[in-house]
Amino acid sequence: MAYYALIMAGGTGTRLWPLSRRATPKQSLCLVGERTMFQHAVDRVLPLFGAEHILVVAPGPYVETLIEQAPMLRPGNFIVEPEGRGTAPCIGLAAVHLRHRDPGARMAVLTADQYIHDVARFRQALVAAGELAGSGYIVTLGIKPSAPVTGYGYIEQGEYLEAPQGFAAYRAVRFTEKPDQETAERMVASGTFSWNSGMFIWRVADVMEEFARQMPDLLAHLLEIEGAIDTAVYGETLARVWPQVPKQTIDYGIMEGARRVAVIPVDIGWSDVGSWASLAELWPSDADGNIVVSDHIGLGTHNSIVFGSKRLVATIGLRDVVIVDTPDALLVCARGREQDVREVVRLLESQGRQEVL
Amino acid sequence: MAYYALIMAGGTGTRLWPLSRRATPKQSLCLVGERTMFQHAVDRVLPLFGAEHILVVAPGPYVETLIEQAPMLRPGNFIVEPEGRGTAPCIGLAAVHLRHRDPGARMAVLTADQYIHDVARFRQALVAAGELAGSGYIVTLGIKPSAPVTGYGYIEQGEYLEAPQGFAAYRAVRFTEKPDQETAERMVASGTFSWNSGMFIWRVADVMEEFARQMPDLLAHLLEIEGAIDTAVYGETLARVWPQVPKQTIDYGIMEGARRVAVIPVDIGWSDVGSWASLAELWPSDADGNIVVSDHIGLGTHNSIVFGSKRLVATIGLRDVVIVDTPDALLVCARGREQDVREVVRLLESQGRQEVL
Repeated sequence: MAYYALIMAGGTGTRLWPLSRRATPKQSLCLVGERTMFQHAVDRVLPLFGAEHILVVAPGPYVETLIEQAPMLRPGNFIVEPEGRGTAPCIGLAAVHLRHRDPGARMAVLTADQYIHDVARFRQALVAAGELAGSGYIVTLGIKPSAPVTGYGYIEQGEYLEAPQGFAAYRAVRFTEKPDQETAERMVASGTFSWNSGMFIWRVADVMEEFARQMPDLLAHLLEIEGAIDTAVYGETLARVWPQVPKQTIDYGIMEGARRVAVIPVDIGWSDVGSWASLAELWPSDADGNIVVSDHIGLGTHNSIVFGSKRLVATIGLRDVVIVDTPDALLVCARGREQDVREVVRLLESQGRQEVL
Repeated sequence: MAYYALIMAGGTGTRLWPLSRRATPKQSLCLVGERTMFQHAVDRVLPLFGAEHILVVAPGPYVETLIEQAPMLRPGNFIVEPEGRGTAPCIGLAAVHLRHRDPGARMAVLTADQYIHDVARFRQALVAAGELAGSGYIVTLGIKPSAPVTGYGYIEQGEYLEAPQGFAAYRAVRFTEKPDQETAERMVASGTFSWNSGMFIWRVADVMEEFARQMPDLLAHLLEIEGAIDTAVYGETLARVWPQVPKQTIDYGIMEGARRVAVIPVDIGWSDVGSWASLAELWPSDADGNIVVSDHIGLGTHNSIVFGSKRLVATIGLRDVVIVDTPDALLVCARGREQDVREVVRLLESQGRQEVL
C-alpha cells in the first residue's frame, strides 16, 4: 500500500506582511536558514517518501516558482488549485488525483508553511501515522502544547488505541477551534489535549468515504474533475467546476465529524510560523533581547525585532517593537499586536492597494 | 549707514537625520510648507534688505544649490566657507567681506535653519535692532521662552536701555549655555531671561573691535584673508589660512565677553527646528495626536510622528514613536529621545558609513 506526501503550498501568510505578499507568499520566503519554507517542507519528507511519491498542490501562479525551488520533484506531481477555496476542496482535489493514480494509496497531508525542528522525530511520526492509517484510521498529528495559546485549534484525546512505532495513539474525541484563555489553560493543564497541526494521514479510500458522507456536494464536483484527469478536457473541466465548489476547511468539513479519528501527540519542535511573534521564537536574540536580521544600529533598544531589507535601520529607545522593512512597505508594530497585521492587510485590500498586497 | 543681512547656511541638521544629510542638509529641505528652510530665510528678509544687501555664507558644495534656490540673490553675495569651523570664524569671514565692501555697514547675522512664524514682527524687530546697533550696541534677539527647555542657551536681561521701534531693549548681563532643568525653570519663572536665538545685529566696525580684543588670533587670520579679497590670490589665501583658524562659536568667542551687549526680547513664533520633536510642533496633528507626512495606515497609533518618503508605512499599537523613512535609511525612535539622533550620526561617522551620512 503505497504512501504519498501531499504538500499544500497555497497559504498566503497574511500575518507576515509586508514580507509575505501575494507574489511572494510565506512558503517561498527564506524565514529560517537559507532554504524557503517550501524547500524545508520538501527536504523533510524527501528521504521518507521519495520524489515520485511527493505531490504538491498550489495556486497556478505559484507553481512555476515552486518547481524551480524543488527541481528533484516531478512537474507532473504539482496539482494546480485554480483559486483558494479552503483546505477541504484543496485536499479533495489532491485525493482524487491520487486515487486516479493509485486507489490503494495512503496519503500524509502536510503544509509548506510550518517549521519543524526535530525532522527525524517527525519522519518517525509519519511512519507511525501511516501504519495506523493502514488499519483504517483517519489520523491527525497533534502537537504537545507548550503553552495555553488561544490562536490554535485543540484536539482532545480519548481512549488509548495502540502504539505504532512506539508512538501512543488515541481516539480523537473532539476538535475545539481557537478557545478563550481560560479554556486553553484548562485544556493544557489536563494533559489530554494537543494542538491541531493541520497534518493528517489516511487511506485515500477512507477520506473519500468521509467526503461522500459529510460533503456530498463537494464530492460531486470532485468526481466530475476526477473523470477528466488525463483527458484533453481536464483544464476546462477544472476551470468550470472549481468556482462552484463550496469554501470549507478540512477541520469543519471532515475532521470534526469523521468516524474513527485517531490522534498521535508528537513533540517535534513544531512552529506554525504564523506571525512575527512565532517567527521570532525561531531566531536567536542578542544580549538586549533583540532579534535583528538587518543592517541595524540601535541605542537603548530592547526586546524588539528588526527585520530589514537593504536599508540601514536605526532605532533609539525602543522596547517591544517589531520593525519589518521591505523595499515598498514598512511595518512598525507593538509586540503583542502581531496578529493585527492581518487587519492591516484587510484594510489594504479594501482600499484596493494591490501594489503592496 | 547701510544695513545688510547675513544668512549663515552651513548647518548640518544632524538631529534631523536620516532626512538631513551632508548632501541634503536641513536648510535645503522643505520642512515647513513647500519652500526650503533657506528659501524661508531669504523670503523673510528680502523685502527689508533687498537682494543687494543679503549675503550668504555656506560651504562650497552647498553654494550651487543655494544659488538655484534663491535666484534673486547675486552669486557674488555668496561667501564660501571652505570648512565649518564654528560660527565665530564664519561670521568673522563675512564681516571682513562686508567691511571691504562698506566699512560703515551694519549687519544682521541670521541663520537658515530656524523657522519664524510671525515674519512681520520679526522684520520690525530687525529694524529696531538695527537702530540700536547704530548707536554702538552689540545686539542679540532674545526669544521669550515658552517653556523651561534645557537644550537652549539663555540670556539674562539687566538694566532697561531704550525702546527702539517700541521694542524694549535691555543690557544683556549674562549668557548661560544649556542649563539643568531646575535652573531652566528658575530662569523662565523670573521673567528676565530670553533664549539665545543666535541672531545678532551690530555695526561691522564694532564686531571687528571685539574680534581684535577677544580673538586676536582669529583676527590675524581674518585680516590676511581680507587683504586678498578681490585679488587673484583670494582663493589660495583662503584655502591656506582657513585650516589654521581656531574652531569657536560666536557665543563663547565674542558674545559672552563683549562690551555693550543689548538684548531685545521678541515674540515672533520662533522655532530652532533642531530635532524631530521641535519640527513636530510646526505640523498639525490628527485626532489621535499623530503627525503624518507619509503614505500611512495606522491601527491604534497615538502621539506618533510618521515622516515617510514614497513607501507605505503601516503602524500598529504604537504610542510616542517617531518614524522617519527615507530611501536608504530608516529611523524609529521613542519620543523624548529625539536628541539622541545625534549619537546615531556620531556612531555612523565612527563606522565610516559615508553612504548614509
